[in-house]
Amino acid sequence: MKYALLSVWDKTGIIELAECLLKNNYTILSSGGTAKTLREAGLEITEVSEYTGAPEMMDGRVKTLHPKIHGGLLGRRGIDDEVMKNNKISAIDILVVNLYPFEEMSSKNLPLNELIEYVDIGGPAMIRAAAKNFKDVSVIIDPSDYEMLKKAVSEKNLSEKDRLYFAKKVFSRTASYDAAISNYLSSIDSEFPEVYTVQFKNGRMLRYGENPHQKAAIYGETGIAGQTPLQGKAMSYNNYLDVDAAVGLLREFDETAAVIVKHNNPCGVSLGERLLDAYLKARDVDPVSAYGGIVALNRKVEADVAKELASTFIEVVIAPSYTKEALEIMKVKENMRVLILPEEKESVSLRTIDGGALIQSTPKDVSENWEVVSEREPTKEEMGAMKLAMKICKHTKSNAIVFAKGKSASAIGAGQMNRVNSTEIAIKKAESSLEGSVVASDAFLPFADTLEVAAKAGATALLQPGGSIRDNEVIEAANRLNIAMVFTGIRYFRH
Amino acid sequence: MKYALLSVWDKTGIIELAECLLKNNYTILSSGGTAKTLREAGLEITEVSEYTGAPEMMDGRVKTLHPKIHGGLLGRRGIDDEVMKNNKISAIDILVVNLYPFEEMSSKNLPLNELIEYVDIGGPAMIRAAAKNFKDVSVIIDPSDYEMLKKAVSEKNLSEKDRLYFAKKVFSRTASYDAAISNYLSSIDSEFPEVYTVQFKNGRMLRYGENPHQKAAIYGETGIAGQTPLQGKAMSYNNYLDVDAAVGLLREFDETAAVIVKHNNPCGVSLGERLLDAYLKARDVDPVSAYGGIVALNRKVEADVAKELASTFIEVVIAPSYTKEALEIMKVKENMRVLILPEEKESVSLRTIDGGALIQSTPKDVSENWEVVSEREPTKEEMGAMKLAMKICKHTKSNAIVFAKGKSASAIGAGQMNRVNSTEIAIKKAESSLEGSVVASDAFLPFADTLEVAAKAGATALLQPGGSIRDNEVIEAANRLNIAMVFTGIRYFRH
Repeated sequence: MKYALLSVWDKTGIIELAECLLKNNYTILSSGGTAKTLREAGLEITEVSEYTGAPEMMDGRVKTLHPKIHGGLLGRRGIDDEVMKNNKISAIDILVVNLYPFEEMSSKNLPLNELIEYVDIGGPAMIRAAAKNFKDVSVIIDPSDYEMLKKAVSEKNLSEKDRLYFAKKVFSRTASYDAAISNYLSSIDSEFPEVYTVQFKNGRMLRYGENPHQKAAIYGETGIAGQTPLQGKAMSYNNYLDVDAAVGLLREFDETAAVIVKHNNPCGVSLGERLLDAYLKARDVDPVSAYGGIVALNRKVEADVAKELASTFIEVVIAPSYTKEALEIMKVKENMRVLILPEEKESVSLRTIDGGALIQSTPKDVSENWEVVSEREPTKEEMGAMKLAMKICKHTKSNAIVFAKGKSASAIGAGQMNRVNSTEIAIKKAESSLEGSVVASDAFLPFADTLEVAAKAGATALLQPGGSIRDNEVIEAANRLNIAMVFTGIRYFRH
Repeated sequence: MKYALLSVWDKTGIIELAECLLKNNYTILSSGGTAKTLREAGLEITEVSEYTGAPEMMDGRVKTLHPKIHGGLLGRRGIDDEVMKNNKISAIDILVVNLYPFEEMSSKNLPLNELIEYVDIGGPAMIRAAAKNFKDVSVIIDPSDYEMLKKAVSEKNLSEKDRLYFAKKVFSRTASYDAAISNYLSSIDSEFPEVYTVQFKNGRMLRYGENPHQKAAIYGETGIAGQTPLQGKAMSYNNYLDVDAAVGLLREFDETAAVIVKHNNPCGVSLGERLLDAYLKARDVDPVSAYGGIVALNRKVEADVAKELASTFIEVVIAPSYTKEALEIMKVKENMRVLILPEEKESVSLRTIDGGALIQSTPKDVSENWEVVSEREPTKEEMGAMKLAMKICKHTKSNAIVFAKGKSASAIGAGQMNRVNSTEIAIKKAESSLEGSVVASDAFLPFADTLEVAAKAGATALLQPGGSIRDNEVIEAANRLNIAMVFTGIRYFRH
């Protein structure tokens, strides 16, 4: 007699699976809700309690935790046959289980004593036992594997390789299940859990890491990390990192916008009436750097933009959608990677350092408290340009200084160890006159020098968080130079 | 009768604990090796098999997976009393378990069928059951908690708060245990696991993240992440990140060395006969940026260096050790954070992006294949300076251009979106003449322009990976300008 044990929270597809098992001469052991579902479908099953001789008890807390069940899962065929026979233990060849929905329930603000009932004990014990014994037992925890199981059972060709595949899934699942419980319990009294367990899925090896001598992989099922290109070469480690930076900035804009990133910093950003205008203006901000860059666009790409994209060398383009014609046009650049812009989701950022990791929240909507601190009020146009410049600052490596004019970045100074350097770099790199531009700084100006240098270059307004002990000196300088200056109260370092 | 069940792989302290439990009138249930150890110590215990009436079987695979054990752990006092009585189940109030050493054994290259025996099934089932029932049951998995348990048992004041503390530990442990099994199984056929589960411990909230509006925490028990300052303010998010960058570069040197980092980039690096020389020279590379920087030193700090550190504003200093006198001197700067340089360990780097994460190896010893490609051979001094410059490049944000002379950096150009910009920035920032300096580039020169600009500034030798399709043009330019040029074959992007 061949035995299969079925005990599932999610009943999807369970009746069809049971029918298939019965047809292939399995005896089905089941309990609780699963038993009820199958019996109501007219299927013949054996209650676990009937089989073990021990009653189901404590509102289902103890059902399957019994030597006749676990011996049937753990018994090594060919080694433990006699002890199984002596103890009236039948080998259970197939186990189908899915767990109580702890993760789902933990987001429902239940009191701990109710939530704790969703911590499954019997389920994990069984699937771990069966997975340990994968040489002999098939354990299926995912309804999407039922088709494969049915086919294999019907064709009688369940292999050890299949069973190892199932076993891997089991331990990934129990690890993430207990991670959820652990994270929940260890964050009862704090913002972040004291012990933080996190699981990344869908790992794919990359050709290499940041550099060819580094091995690397990308994980993720959704978002940018879940993407593979519609066309073009495979994504590299640096491509993923740069696309992430480009999309982070792009998501600041509701207006039609184009962002170009190189080496993890924006080198061109522009808004426009049409996407084509935005893209061409973004490219003109720093054409040398834009070459070989990452282009992120927030509107459907049509033929006009596709032609421009295909006219130069671009590593990656990402946009919400593409017309058929645009896709056709871009095919001439067969190496250019084309991605779909995913929906935004709030998340926590994590990065490892020596011996551990840093995590931080990345709130999207930060309320800046704009305050005009200079004698002169900024004009409406200056205000618009400053808003744009600050959004760019936020996504530029510190120290960041961004000049903007109208609806376009004029010059971006990034990644310097002191602030005047960033300003000077931006000015030096500017392709067009900075006369009438505005400037934003990611952090407060410690001295008036940055403002003076910017004013000399032609800037008429300056945006910064404020908060230096020398704010007064900087305000005086602004007034002296007729600069309109606004404090935002929010710093945007990025490293 | 009060029951305690003891079943441990690691026998540390178990006899003393059992003695304490017996003295406080607990009946001890035990099995296998633990039972043997306790009995040999002359203690009276009850075998689990005797208690359940079911034999231990399958070489220990099935021992405790029995309703009398799990009912005793899961039964809700006050609710399930009658069902327990009817089924002759005694409440088990204390469970002491630690698991088979899967993690340790998995590093020993055992074949899978042997390693799988170290996947504990009974242990996790019991500790999870007891942790679910933490309102009534104390479950201890860590010998370092035995003292606390003994005290609480003797004083009869085990509280629900204590039991919740124990329960948290259980789920963190089972999550990391199954993470190890999952990671092992899902990397059988590949370099990195397909599903990657990772746990970070010792989480401590930080005042804020990269910016004040971001919430953040640091995790880690060892390395830089495990540190708290000997003196000074609490470490900030950016402090940890910058110290990590500074130490990464410092670890490149066996010689006496000083590294100063600002905004995640080195702004001063020098070797020296004495630590004081190295530090003073490093500080002189870019004194403006060095102000408020992170200082990393690889020799013991004595009074002379301490005086210099205390003479200016430094956020953090990290060194292998300090003389008592040095610590005394640094006390005048009460905000300056003082850390101990930890031992180096190889590790994998992980950073999240939208929807997932990137991981990569960070091999320390990369064999560069230095090849002189110019007509002129570099001098011995040029070779030394180039080696220093390339090490700095490796830890500077891309594009990185580093000038060095003798045993010291001369100018560092970081984080630009094109390579000539980085070169020009470095030259502009140089505090001293670059005449006779050497220059290193983190990636190949796509054109001869960087070389020409560097030569004009006074550089006599250039180090780069090579590999551009225009290498010949660059080599021609080097020969024309009498520059000694070396290719390393290894790129060092850093973002």
